[in-house]
Amino acid sequence: MITTPQPTQFEIFSDEFRPLITEKMLDYISFGTTDQRRSLEDAMRYSVAAGGKRLRPLLVLATYNLFAKDLNPVYPLACAIELLHTYSLIHDDLPSMDNDSLRRGMPTCHVQYGEDIAILAGDTLNTFSFELLSTHLAPHFSPAAILRVIREFAKACGLEGMSGGQVLDLKGIHLNPDADYLFKTHALKTGALISASVSLPAILANVSEETLSIMSQFGDQIGQLFQVVDDVLDVTGTAESLGKSTNKDHDQNKLTYIRVFGLEHSLDLIKQQATAARHTLAKLSTHDTQLLASIVDYIETRTT
Amino acid sequence: MITTPQPTQFEIFSDEFRPLITEKMLDYISFGTTDQRRSLEDAMRYSVAAGGKRLRPLLVLATYNLFAKDLNPVYPLACAIELLHTYSLIHDDLPSMDNDSLRRGMPTCHVQYGEDIAILAGDTLNTFSFELLSTHLAPHFSPAAILRVIREFAKACGLEGMSGGQVLDLKGIHLNPDADYLFKTHALKTGALISASVSLPAILANVSEETLSIMSQFGDQIGQLFQVVDDVLDVTGTAESLGKSTNKDHDQNKLTYIRVFGLEHSLDLIKQQATAARHTLAKLSTHDTQLLASIVDYIETRTT
Repeated sequence: MITTPQPTQFEIFSDEFRPLITEKMLDYISFGTTDQRRSLEDAMRYSVAAGGKRLRPLLVLATYNLFAKDLNPVYPLACAIELLHTYSLIHDDLPSMDNDSLRRGMPTCHVQYGEDIAILAGDTLNTFSFELLSTHLAPHFSPAAILRVIREFAKACGLEGMSGGQVLDLKGIHLNPDADYLFKTHALKTGALISASVSLPAILANVSEETLSIMSQFGDQIGQLFQVVDDVLDVTGTAESLGKSTNKDHDQNKLTYIRVFGLEHSLDLIKQQATAARHTLAKLSTHDTQLLASIVDYIETRTT
Repeated sequence: MITTPQPTQFEIFSDEFRPLITEKMLDYISFGTTDQRRSLEDAMRYSVAAGGKRLRPLLVLATYNLFAKDLNPVYPLACAIELLHTYSLIHDDLPSMDNDSLRRGMPTCHVQYGEDIAILAGDTLNTFSFELLSTHLAPHFSPAAILRVIREFAKACGLEGMSGGQVLDLKGIHLNPDADYLFKTHALKTGALISASVSLPAILANVSEETLSIMSQFGDQIGQLFQVVDDVLDVTGTAESLGKSTNKDHDQNKLTYIRVFGLEHSLDLIKQQATAARHTLAKLSTHDTQLLASIVDYIETRTT
């Protein structure tokens, strides 16, 4: 008799909320244009609908769920973060950046719509994420809390966050292995937005500064964990399972965990980082952290 | 005896405040990075320092000045709008867009720093303008007013504003002359942000909805006026005086006022639109509108 493995708590959560997140995002960016802006709207929707793990918005919902039962108020934040992430992928894929033609098993935005429209689709998603935060959180949270979220979100996406990390990534090509440079690159490029996916819903849930600091630490740890796993999958995964080219970072001579630490040590780092994240979670002893713990398991063991 | 013409009120205002605006913007984007992000910071500063008329931030200051004496609180808004405008110029100049190599008499950002860094410089200025609004207006205005400004600002820059207009502009090439398409293109591409430069400081000054509606109308009118003049200058100006290529729009077969209405009728439109803007200003009879009237004169008669 073949036994099917029981789905994890995160898998159940993801199966329930991932389609809702996609649906909400597509709702938000439905402008119903009938003129020549249609190509821009289509390109935005194409990249948003292309799928993906939706890890960031799921983290937003799962974190908010620690402190509040009704998840509806926090969807605009979950969607804004994923729309911002989508813009970053569209621009990262451009010919002058990583020059990728495949993303999530489909032609990248510029291959499908042309480079001009792809640049504008990214630009517009970038701006729109702020429109979303400033418009749709308002009925549920205080203006002061929303402003703080916008401020921290913008910072996580700028020169001291995601954009800065992308520059380090581009300029890290052909650099000699350098652990500090690698850590900084990933802390900014990937870590900042993943960390924000944990700390920003905590701000909206009006937690104490002490709890917020624990959440931020947890966010930083799973951000780093995510990236080590990503680098390992780049060399051990298949294009089919990943939906994108493999060995790409390696072939482009990017500064990866593999290049700096080798595969074996990178696998050790994954274990260490996952353990550290679980220890941080344990500090939130008065909350039910099982779902977040299940997300740590997922990030650690994911194969896509 | 040679008489020097008296400087206009706007010229005096511009001479005083333009350098301050540039200085403040450069202060805001001084991150002091010492790692490889330096190229990104440099590219942002290069494009911001390149100059320009600073019409939008001057409009912010001049409008706010109608309602309040101390202009310091509104600088973050003035700078955010100009930084956003700078991002749009960097991206508009890219090879896949307008493919311009000269801007304000200097090599465009991608010529100077490479296409990847130019795209990221635009992205980062886009995001940073929201960081600025959410951070530096806070001590002087209510969170609710700031949120409203962020919301309206984001809208003015998105698919229903500047980005949407840029698509219409790109797709309008080779279209048959079409006045409606032309008006919509410019209302979105240029008008929305110029109009926001008038309506957003009015929101911060806490004016009545009636006054705000007058300011928005005025903003729309000078936005359109600005663009007709721009199209005329594209065919009548010189590269030296404009600091950018001339006949560019014409050569690229863009849908301009000249192509739709011809030069003579476009000159008539300039007069009509300037008169309409002055009529709107006259509705603000209890305020000293001389400075804004002087800006209308400037936009109408500018040669650069």
